[in-house]
Amino acid sequence: MELSWNEKFASRVGRVQGSQIRSFFKLTERPEVISFAGGFPDSDFFPREDIARAVSDLIEEEGRYALQYTPTEGNLELRTFLARKMRREGVLCEAEDIVVTSGTQQALDLIARLLVDPGEPVMVEEPAYIGGMGVIKACGGEPVGVPVDKNGACPQKMEKVLSKLEKQGKTPKLFYTVPNFQNPTGYTTTEERRRKIMELASRYNFIILEDNPYGEICYEGTTPPSYKSMDTESRVIYIGSYSKIFLPGIRVGWIVGAPPLIDKLVLLKQSADLCSGSLGQRLVYRLAMDGYVDENLARIIDLYRQKRDALFYNMQQFFPPEIDYTRPQGGFFVWVTFPKYYPPAYEILTQAVERKVAFVHGEGFFSNGQGSHTARFSFSQPTVEDIHKGISRLGELFHEIRRQEPIQKAMAK
Amino acid sequence: MELSWNEKFASRVGRVQGSQIRSFFKLTERPEVISFAGGFPDSDFFPREDIARAVSDLIEEEGRYALQYTPTEGNLELRTFLARKMRREGVLCEAEDIVVTSGTQQALDLIARLLVDPGEPVMVEEPAYIGGMGVIKACGGEPVGVPVDKNGACPQKMEKVLSKLEKQGKTPKLFYTVPNFQNPTGYTTTEERRRKIMELASRYNFIILEDNPYGEICYEGTTPPSYKSMDTESRVIYIGSYSKIFLPGIRVGWIVGAPPLIDKLVLLKQSADLCSGSLGQRLVYRLAMDGYVDENLARIIDLYRQKRDALFYNMQQFFPPEIDYTRPQGGFFVWVTFPKYYPPAYEILTQAVERKVAFVHGEGFFSNGQGSHTARFSFSQPTVEDIHKGISRLGELFHEIRRQEPIQKAMAK
Repeated sequence: MELSWNEKFASRVGRVQGSQIRSFFKLTERPEVISFAGGFPDSDFFPREDIARAVSDLIEEEGRYALQYTPTEGNLELRTFLARKMRREGVLCEAEDIVVTSGTQQALDLIARLLVDPGEPVMVEEPAYIGGMGVIKACGGEPVGVPVDKNGACPQKMEKVLSKLEKQGKTPKLFYTVPNFQNPTGYTTTEERRRKIMELASRYNFIILEDNPYGEICYEGTTPPSYKSMDTESRVIYIGSYSKIFLPGIRVGWIVGAPPLIDKLVLLKQSADLCSGSLGQRLVYRLAMDGYVDENLARIIDLYRQKRDALFYNMQQFFPPEIDYTRPQGGFFVWVTFPKYYPPAYEILTQAVERKVAFVHGEGFFSNGQGSHTARFSFSQPTVEDIHKGISRLGELFHEIRRQEPIQKAMAK
Repeated sequence: MELSWNEKFASRVGRVQGSQIRSFFKLTERPEVISFAGGFPDSDFFPREDIARAVSDLIEEEGRYALQYTPTEGNLELRTFLARKMRREGVLCEAEDIVVTSGTQQALDLIARLLVDPGEPVMVEEPAYIGGMGVIKACGGEPVGVPVDKNGACPQKMEKVLSKLEKQGKTPKLFYTVPNFQNPTGYTTTEERRRKIMELASRYNFIILEDNPYGEICYEGTTPPSYKSMDTESRVIYIGSYSKIFLPGIRVGWIVGAPPLIDKLVLLKQSADLCSGSLGQRLVYRLAMDGYVDENLARIIDLYRQKRDALFYNMQQFFPPEIDYTRPQGGFFVWVTFPKYYPPAYEILTQAVERKVAFVHGEGFFSNGQGSHTARFSFSQPTVEDIHKGISRLGELFHEIRRQEPIQKAMAK
C-alpha cells in the first residue's frame, strides 16, 4: 500500500509557508521579462577572475583545512576578523561572541527556533522582510506589526502596540528589524528612533533582532549607529551577511550575541548542519582580511548607485505624479505606493507581466493582510538600459490605467 | 538591566543536546594525541591541486551562476546527475524527486522537523549515529532502540519492539538506519534483513529513513541493494552525501523522497537557509559528471583500506583476546567491546588519553544508557604509522588493566 504522506507530517508543518515572492519568481524570471522582482545581487558585478585566482591559491595553500569540516561556530580566524570589524562599528565583541551561519536566513531560522514559542507575539516591521516573518511563523510565533515610515520603525506606534499587548497580559519576545535600507521599503530608522526603541526594549524587556544585510551598501551619507552598538544590556542580536556586499553563492553570514545565546546557537547549529562550508569561510576571510572585499564593495556601490539613479530618473519621468515611491540612500529596494483609487497592485502586476515587466506586489510583506496598493521594486538586477525600458513600459500602463473613467472620477474629487 | 537570557529561550530548546562526541573532541584533538575519535575524512587525501584547478575554471566559466543564489531545491543539473546516479543503483527517480542539502546533517534536521512530533516514538538502531538521534530528540521524538548485530538491524527484534509499542497503542513514525558500514559499529544490514524490515514497514505503516554516507567506501565485495531500491510504496527516504566520498568542506548532500515530502522539504529549506552554496554544488556536478569523483574515490578507497588493514593487524597483534572488535568491509568505523569485568570504557578512555591515545566511548550511541563497555574507533584520520603506535600503546594499557587482581579473578571464573 502506497504510503499516505499527508498523514505523516508533524503538526508544526502546517505553519511552514513558502515565500510568496520566491514562488512568484518562476513567473517573473522568464528571460524576456524585465524584472524588478528579485533582490539578488547583480551577477555581472561578481569579480570572477579575482575570485577564481583567490580560490585556487587558497585551496593549494590550505586545502587540508578549507576542504575539511570546520568547527560548528565557524572558522576562528574569520570570527576574529568579524569581531574586529564589529568593534570598528562600535560593537564591543570578541570572536567567541560570534557564530558563522549559512547566510542570514539560517541565522534567522536558528534564532527563531531558540526564542519563539507557539502562540507568542513577536513584533515585526510593517511591512517586513518576508523571510524573517516566515521563520517566526514557522515556530508558531504571531507577528504583530510596528508601522515604518520614512524615518523607519516608529517608537510611538510601537509603544501603542506594547501597551495594547500588556493589557492582554502579553509581552512580545522580540522585535525583528532591518534598520538600514529596509527590505522592502528602503527606509532607514533614524538614530533618535533607535534610541527610543532601545528604551522601550529595556522597559518592556524584549529582545531586538537587528538584521543588517544592506547597511554597507550606502550611496550617500552614512547609516546611524547600530542597535547593537547602543546595547548596554545584552539584549540585541545582530545579524550580518556577505551575500549582498560580496557573494551569495558561498553562504556566509554571522550572528553577534550574548554568550548564553551563542552557546545555544552553536548546539542548535550542530544539529542543523554540523558546520557551514569551510571553503566559503576561508575565501571570505582571506579576501576581507587583505582589504579586497572593501575595495570590491566600493566598486559595486558605484555601479548600484547608477542603477538606483536610473530608477529614480525613469520613475520621475514616466510615472504619473499620484504614484508615490521611496528614495532610499542605500540597499536594493524602492517601495511604491499606488493611490487607493487604482486597482490593487496584484492586478496591476498581472497587466505588467503581460507587457513583460515584473515587480512584487506588497501584501506578502504585511502580517495583517494590508498593503494591497503597494509594491517592491528592486534595482539590483536589471541593467540601466532595462531599467529605462521597464519603467517606461510601466509608465505607459499606469497612464492607461489612470485614463479609465472610474479613476478619472476618483481623481477629480 | 541586563537581559536574563535563560528566561527567554523557547521551550523546545531544552531538547537540543550537543553531541557528546563533538564536545569531547576538544580533549582528544590536541596535536600530540593519536586520535581514533573523529570520523572526518583524511584531509591529506584531498586532491588539492586538481580541486584548485577545477574551481578556478568553474568560476571563470560560470561564476555568474556559481557565485549567485541557486534554487532552494538545488542546482538542476546536479539534481539531474544525482537522479541518474540513483537510477544506476536501482532507484527509480528523477531530478524533481531530489533536494540538495548542506550535507547529511541538514537533511536529517529538515526531515525530523517535517515528520517528528513531540512524544512520538521513533525507531533507531542500537547503537545509532548520534547526529541522527540528536535531531529526533530535538523535535521531541522518543528514540526506541532496535539492536544491531553483525548482520545489521535485526527484524525479529524490531518486530518485538513494534508489537510492544502496539500494545501501548503506539506506532513509530519512522525507522532511522545507516545500513552500510554503520556509524558506529561498521556493520552492514544484509539484503534478507532489509527485505524483512521493508515488510514490517509496510505492515506497521512506518517510514524508513535510509542514511548512506559510507556505502561507496567499500573495501571488499559489494553492498546489498538499498532500501530505496526495494521501495514499491514510496515509504523510504534516502539520504546521500559527498562529505565522505569526496569533500566535506563544501557541504553537499541530497535527499530522495516521495513528491509530497519533497514539496514540504523545499518549503522548509527555504525557511532554513534559502539555498545551499552554489559553488560547492557546481564543483561537485562538474567533477562527478566527468568521472573525476569516482576516480578519486577509487584512489582513496585503496588508501583507507590500508588504514583499516593496519588497524585490524595491530588490534590482533596488541589487544588481549577477550577484547572483541568488528571487521567492517567498508566505511571508517570499528566497534570495540570490552568484557564486562573490565572497567567501563569511559574510565579506560581517561587512562588512554593520559597515554596520548583517544577513541570514543560508546554510551552516547545508545538511546537507553547502555554501551558502558563499548567504544568506537575510527581509522580514517590517523596515518598507518600512528595507527600502529596508538594501538600498541592501548595494547600495553589493556594488558596492564587485565593484570589487575579483580580482573584476573573474573577471568579465572
